[in-house]
Parts: sequence; C-alpha cells; structure tokens
Amino acid sequence: MAQKPSIPKGTRDFNPEEVAKRNYIFSTIKSQFQRFGFQPIETPSFENSDTLMGKYGEEGDRLIFKILNSGDFLSKVDEPLYALKDSGKITPKISEKALRYDLTVPFARYVVQHQNEIEFPFKRYQMQPVWRADRPQKGRFREFYQCDADVVGSDSLWQEVEFVQLYDNVFTALKLEGATIKINNRKILSGIAEVIGASDKLIDFTVALDKLDKIGEDKVKEEMLSKGISQEGIAKLQPLFTLKGDFGTQIESLKSILNTSEEGQKGIEELSFINEAITALGLKSAKLQLDVTLARGLNYYTGAIFEVSAPEGVAMGSIGGGGRYDDLTGIFGLKNVSGVGISFGLDRIYLVLEELGLFPETITKSTEVLFINFGDKESLFSLKAIKALRENNINAELYPDSAKMKKQMNYANKRNIPYVVLVGEEELKNNQFTLKNMISGEQDKVDLEALVTRLK
Amino acid sequence: MAQKPSIPKGTRDFNPEEVAKRNYIFSTIKSQFQRFGFQPIETPSFENSDTLMGKYGEEGDRLIFKILNSGDFLSKVDEPLYALKDSGKITPKISEKALRYDLTVPFARYVVQHQNEIEFPFKRYQMQPVWRADRPQKGRFREFYQCDADVVGSDSLWQEVEFVQLYDNVFTALKLEGATIKINNRKILSGIAEVIGASDKLIDFTVALDKLDKIGEDKVKEEMLSKGISQEGIAKLQPLFTLKGDFGTQIESLKSILNTSEEGQKGIEELSFINEAITALGLKSAKLQLDVTLARGLNYYTGAIFEVSAPEGVAMGSIGGGGRYDDLTGIFGLKNVSGVGISFGLDRIYLVLEELGLFPETITKSTEVLFINFGDKESLFSLKAIKALRENNINAELYPDSAKMKKQMNYANKRNIPYVVLVGEEELKNNQFTLKNMISGEQDKVDLEALVTRLK
Repeated sequence: MAQKPSIPKGTRDFNPEEVAKRNYIFSTIKSQFQRFGFQPIETPSFENSDTLMGKYGEEGDRLIFKILNSGDFLSKVDEPLYALKDSGKITPKISEKALRYDLTVPFARYVVQHQNEIEFPFKRYQMQPVWRADRPQKGRFREFYQCDADVVGSDSLWQEVEFVQLYDNVFTALKLEGATIKINNRKILSGIAEVIGASDKLIDFTVALDKLDKIGEDKVKEEMLSKGISQEGIAKLQPLFTLKGDFGTQIESLKSILNTSEEGQKGIEELSFINEAITALGLKSAKLQLDVTLARGLNYYTGAIFEVSAPEGVAMGSIGGGGRYDDLTGIFGLKNVSGVGISFGLDRIYLVLEELGLFPETITKSTEVLFINFGDKESLFSLKAIKALRENNINAELYPDSAKMKKQMNYANKRNIPYVVLVGEEELKNNQFTLKNMISGEQDKVDLEALVTRLK
Repeated sequence: MAQKPSIPKGTRDFNPEEVAKRNYIFSTIKSQFQRFGFQPIETPSFENSDTLMGKYGEEGDRLIFKILNSGDFLSKVDEPLYALKDSGKITPKISEKALRYDLTVPFARYVVQHQNEIEFPFKRYQMQPVWRADRPQKGRFREFYQCDADVVGSDSLWQEVEFVQLYDNVFTALKLEGATIKINNRKILSGIAEVIGASDKLIDFTVALDKLDKIGEDKVKEEMLSKGISQEGIAKLQPLFTLKGDFGTQIESLKSILNTSEEGQKGIEELSFINEAITALGLKSAKLQLDVTLARGLNYYTGAIFEVSAPEGVAMGSIGGGGRYDDLTGIFGLKNVSGVGISFGLDRIYLVLEELGLFPETITKSTEVLFINFGDKESLFSLKAIKALRENNINAELYPDSAKMKKQMNYANKRNIPYVVLVGEEELKNNQFTLKNMISGEQDKVDLEALVTRLK
C-alpha cells in the first residue's frame, strides 16, 4: 500500500519560508495595485474549453491542460470517430473543460459576461495560478502565478503613464532599485516596416529586430534578407542599429527615420507624451528607456509595449511586461473596448530578491515565543499567559508534549523562535515566568504584565 | 467567431466586492492560525493520480477531476484495451494527474516527502482551492477553498484544547458570536457500541445515531433494529437519547453508561481533560458542547471529533469541523504519526456573515479619492498630487479621460469612492485643489498639504 510520494514534474511544494517570501511579493504588488485604484477579481481555475481553445495559437492549444469529462465519457464518442484512434480528434468529445492558461483571456470573458455590472473604465487586478503543459526547465513551471493589472474601456495615454509609475512603485517597495522599464510602440514598428517597404512582413521584420541584443547587427540583417526584405530597405534601417542616447535624443532620430509614415509619427507622439509626463512626475528608482527592438507579443499589442528588466548585474530575463491591445473582448462579442495592462513575473522576481538578499528578515519569523512544556499543571498556567499574549497580537505557542527540555529548545531553535518561556514549579508558585532570549541567551523572571510588555 | 461567454457549472467568478469579503475571512483566519504558531505550506493544484486515487473511497475516486495526458495520449492505450471502450479502464492510461480533492491527502504526502526537512510536531495551515466533480447545488461548488490547520507528530490533548480556542478566536474576530463548538470522541462511540453488543456494527450504529436531530428517537431506533442491533442493546441506549445538561452533567451520565467499557472510559477521560482546560481558560464568545451523536468522518477519526455550528437562528449546516486521526501518513509509508486538525468552511461562513450583516463596511472601500479629469494640463498637475497621496498610503486615482463631468462623478458614485478632487483652470493657477465629500456634498479649496492631511 505504501507509495514513495512525489509530485508531477513542473510543479512545486512550497514550505513555510517560501510561502512567506512569496506572500511578501504578492502583498507588496497587491497593495500598490490598490494604491492605484485597481480592484481584484477572481475567475475559476478551469474554463469551458471553447473559451480557451484557439486563443493562443496552435502551440498554445497544445499546451492547455484539458480535464477529462466525468463518468462514462467514452459513451459520447461515436464509433467511426472512435475507430480512428486519433487523440486530437477525440479530445473535444471527452474533455469539455480546460485549466486556465493565462489571466488575460479569462479576464476578457469576464468583462463580456459581466459587462452590465461593470463600471467602465474597469481597472482590475488578478493574481492567480495558471497552468501550461510546457516542457519543465529551470525557472519554467507547469503551475505558476500571474499577477496582472489591466484597464479596459479607455484609450487614454494617462494609463500608460500610470503603469510606468506602478512598476516603479512596486519595485521600489520591494527595494529592487534600478529596474529598467523598456517601452516601445507597435506603431513605431509598423512605421519602420512601412518606410522600408516591408509592411507585409511586419512580423518577420520585428522577430528579427527583437534579436539584435542576442545575435548582433549582421545576423539580424542576414535574417531580414532571408525573409525577403530588400537590401535597400535594410539600408534604410541603418540609423536604427545605432540609435543611441536618452529618450529624447532617440525620439529625434526616430522622427527623421519615420518622417514619411503617418502611423510611425503617431507612435512617436504617443511615446513622447508618456516620456514627457514621466519626466515631469519623476520616478523613484526605476528608469524608463526607449527600446525600438522590443516586440513582445506583437500580434496582440496595438500601441505601447512594455518590458521590465532586473537591475544591471542580475542575469535574469524580463521580470514584467505588458502593453496596449485593442479589441481584446472582441473574441467574445464585445467590440471596441481598448485595454492596456501589465504583468509581474513572480517567480523571477523571487529569484532576483533571493540573489540580491532583499527579502526582509522579519517576514520569515512566525512564532514570537514558545512556552516549554513541563507537565499539565504548568501547561494550563502557560496557556493562560499565552491567551493574554495572543490578545496582544503576539504569536505564541505551547510545546504540546512535556518532552525533554533539550528537544523542546531544539524545536525553538530550528523554528527560529526568538524567545522561550519556562514555567516550572517555582514560577508556578510565584506566578512568574522565566523569559529567555534565544539569541543572546539572557534570561530573567517576569510577571505576566512585564511578559506582555517585553514581547510586544 | 463571437461566443456567448459562460463558465463551467459549479464554478464562480468573484467580483471586487466578493473578493474583498472573501479576503477578509481568509486574512482573519490566517492571522489567528499564525497567532497559534501554525505555518503555511502550499501544494500543487494537481497531484499524480496514484497519490489521490483510492484515498476517498469509491465515490471519492469518481468525483476526482482527472487531467488528460498531453500529446498523442491514445498511443499509449494498447489495442485490446482500446477495443473494450471502457471509460473506467482506459482512464489510468490516458490520465496521470488529477486535481486536488482536499488538502488532507496532499498534506500527508507533503509530510512524508519532506519528513527530513520538517521539525516535528509540525503545525501547518493551508488555504487553497479544491475541486470535486459533485453535482452542483445551492452552496455546493465544484471549485471551493478549504482552510485547514493540523498538527502532526504529537498526541498531546493540549492540541485539542488549542483548537477549541482557535475556533473561538476566529469566530470572535469575525464578530460571529455564539458559535457552538460540538465535540465528541470516537472512543465514546466505540464504547457505546461495545456496551450494547454492537462493536461489529459501529458504523451502522453511528450513522443511525448521527440522524437523531433530523429524524428523531423512534426512527433512529427503527434504523438500528433494521441494521441488526438487538432490542436489548437499543434499550441500553435509552439514557443516551435523554442525555441533558451541561458538559459535566453529561460526562457523569456517560460514566455510568460506559462503566464496563475500557475504551469508553478513555474517551470520557479525554473529553473531561479538554472540558476542564477550556473551563479554566474560558472562551470569548463560542460555547463548547458535548454531542455524543456527532460522528462525522468516523472511518477517519480516532479520537476527538469537532463540528461547529453557526449561532442559533441561522439556518446553516456546520461551518467547521475536524478531529484527531492516527496514522494519516501511513498510506505513504510513514507510520505512527498522530495528527489532529480542524477546517473552516469558507463559503458557509461567508453566507452567515452576509445574512447577519457582519462584514465591516470598510473592507469593500478601495479607492479613497478620484481626481476628475479636465484635460492634459490639469491631469499632469493632478498626477503630481496623486503621487504625493499614494506616498502617504492613500489609494487615489485619476479618471483617465476628460469625459463629461457627470460621467466622471457617476463613476465615483458607482465605485463607492468617498472623495473627488476637482482641478480646473483656477485651481491650476492658484496651486489648489477642490475637495468634495461625495456623501455630504460639501466641498472646499485646499492646498496639497491640507489635501494629504484631510485624506489621511
């Protein structure tokens, strides 16, 4: 009967210390979301399959975890289909539900389904796990949390400004100073493609450009050429490869590159608006940087594109990203609802805080004081004091068994409990408590009032 | 392409107000768990199927949501098995993972898997969703949260005493005064079965006794008779049906009924210990009641059995329950680890607080102040003030568009935002803000410093 227990690959158990650290990040993000007026919603872990399927491309469909129908699910599969023994074709007949793949599609579904109860513009945040049947590898899991904030129902650029500030506030609150908030705009990318005569190759063009950091200028040009972008067009791109300087300087260069593209100029206008507002408002610890090679999720974003990288010196991919999308809710029948949103990468932020030693020590401390158990009479006396401590918001516990002193002290040490209280015969008689500081080793006798005061 | 969006039956979307109310309950329970020295863990949403299957009986196995394997899952089904077209037989071949059905089995798995990292006695709490393919009905969902606290690795009765206090503390903190914590002990039930010569019919006997409240004495006796319990035995039960009075009085009656059963007397001893300790320590608002008919999860519990009912006058099933179990971890190969735990029924507690109007008004207030948008220049000026407010922990937002005043005020009203700030040309010129109280309608002009002070 006994099994050697394990968990599915790509999933994790979290021990008390890890939960405390994760909750520290969650609650920091959450309190900033609320500071900016975002409201929480939650959606079910699984959705009807047709809500999710077809929304993430072919690859996405493959990575969605499907839930097997209950009962005699095969009875709904007709003979000719069954005879094919084709996993892909049989799936929709034996599975009607699927686990959430991200928070964006369920949010779109939520907005459409509840449109009559929602006050627009709707600023919502959502922090829930998602599941992907991806090949697990270092830092990539099959179950992980997403932390998203989005506004739908307004195309005001002030939202983009607010999101830059929100990123800055969260990372500053986490003491993760020096994060870079990279920004681009789809209209810039479209404009460039237009100018070099490659409007029909926008995706190929941006996929190649996106690799500039990794593979360098020559390889990018090679790839563009191989995708059918003309030599002449690529030549026109030259200023892009050498785009340097601060936000304003780069904007000036872009203006001359894009002077024949109306869409490109609209993109410049939007970027300038955001940059000027941020310059006037100031950032606490992050910096805003224009990055024309940034193209994440391009088929999706229609305006601003965001990506955040960890402070220099920390080798970690992006720790956040987002952008503006038009018509997110169109897939569910509600047209013309523009939205913009950002996301925080919990697992990577965790790794960065760990690497830089930025988790506050206090968050993993749970119990403040342990009462050593010397027997039932002493325990009852102790529990009366414990009750008073708890009423004063002090986390306190009694060791449940009158085990050997050493074992109990050991427990306090391993649990990282800073104080123990000893109540033996003498203390019981004198209505006193021996309070021992586990770090300094000091101990002295106090009455209940002093005990509460000392531990408060 | 457009679909009418919906969610799977038995699941729920939670809007901002509902999330806030649920979080209020969660965080109240959580902070009391911590007050008592419990530490949080989290386990994956899905487990390997063999971790879960066979742990909840046949009915449970049926209600576990299974996850379809990825890829060409049918290729692993051999022809003879496939030809049977038997859903039950094919399931283990096409599904290796299943959604968590409760938090207890994953906790047992966790303890065994991590036994070398854990400091025993291990006091853990866990608040995560579970999934059951049950027929949805009023108050019964296919996805719902469980909130459990357990101690494993100690058989001290002080734990039971602590759990009674923990229940009392949580319900008192929720202002849900007058909850009844019912307690029984499996040893009492075994003792009674022994005394009436029905030890081999313990389950039948307790199932019948458990219905006393609902179907009355005569029907209970009828059922016992039909299950083969003798007339003579049932006659011996008579004092049980009329067991009255306070805890101590009932204990005295039980002593005479159970005087020939060693196990029964052990049960009485345990109950007396808990009752005496609780009497000495006192409860804030709940009451502890002996209920010898209480038998929930009997195949599981080996000592104390708990169940909590809402205050009188509220028609609601149990809002919590638990008990002591021996050898929970035995199924995973770790023997002789005794445990005791309790659980809180979030959904029912929610309904009770709603019915009694006990949710604090403040919890659903999110944004403190909305700045009306009169245009870009005013917005930038406003955002500077908003930044200062947020630095003072005040939740503030700017309406993103310079829409009609009425629309913006309407948004503030619907969102329940208590203050709005108006910044027009004049305010901009004088570096002032018009602060309007949305409840009283009063408004006056203030500078930034006064604005912060007023809203703090």
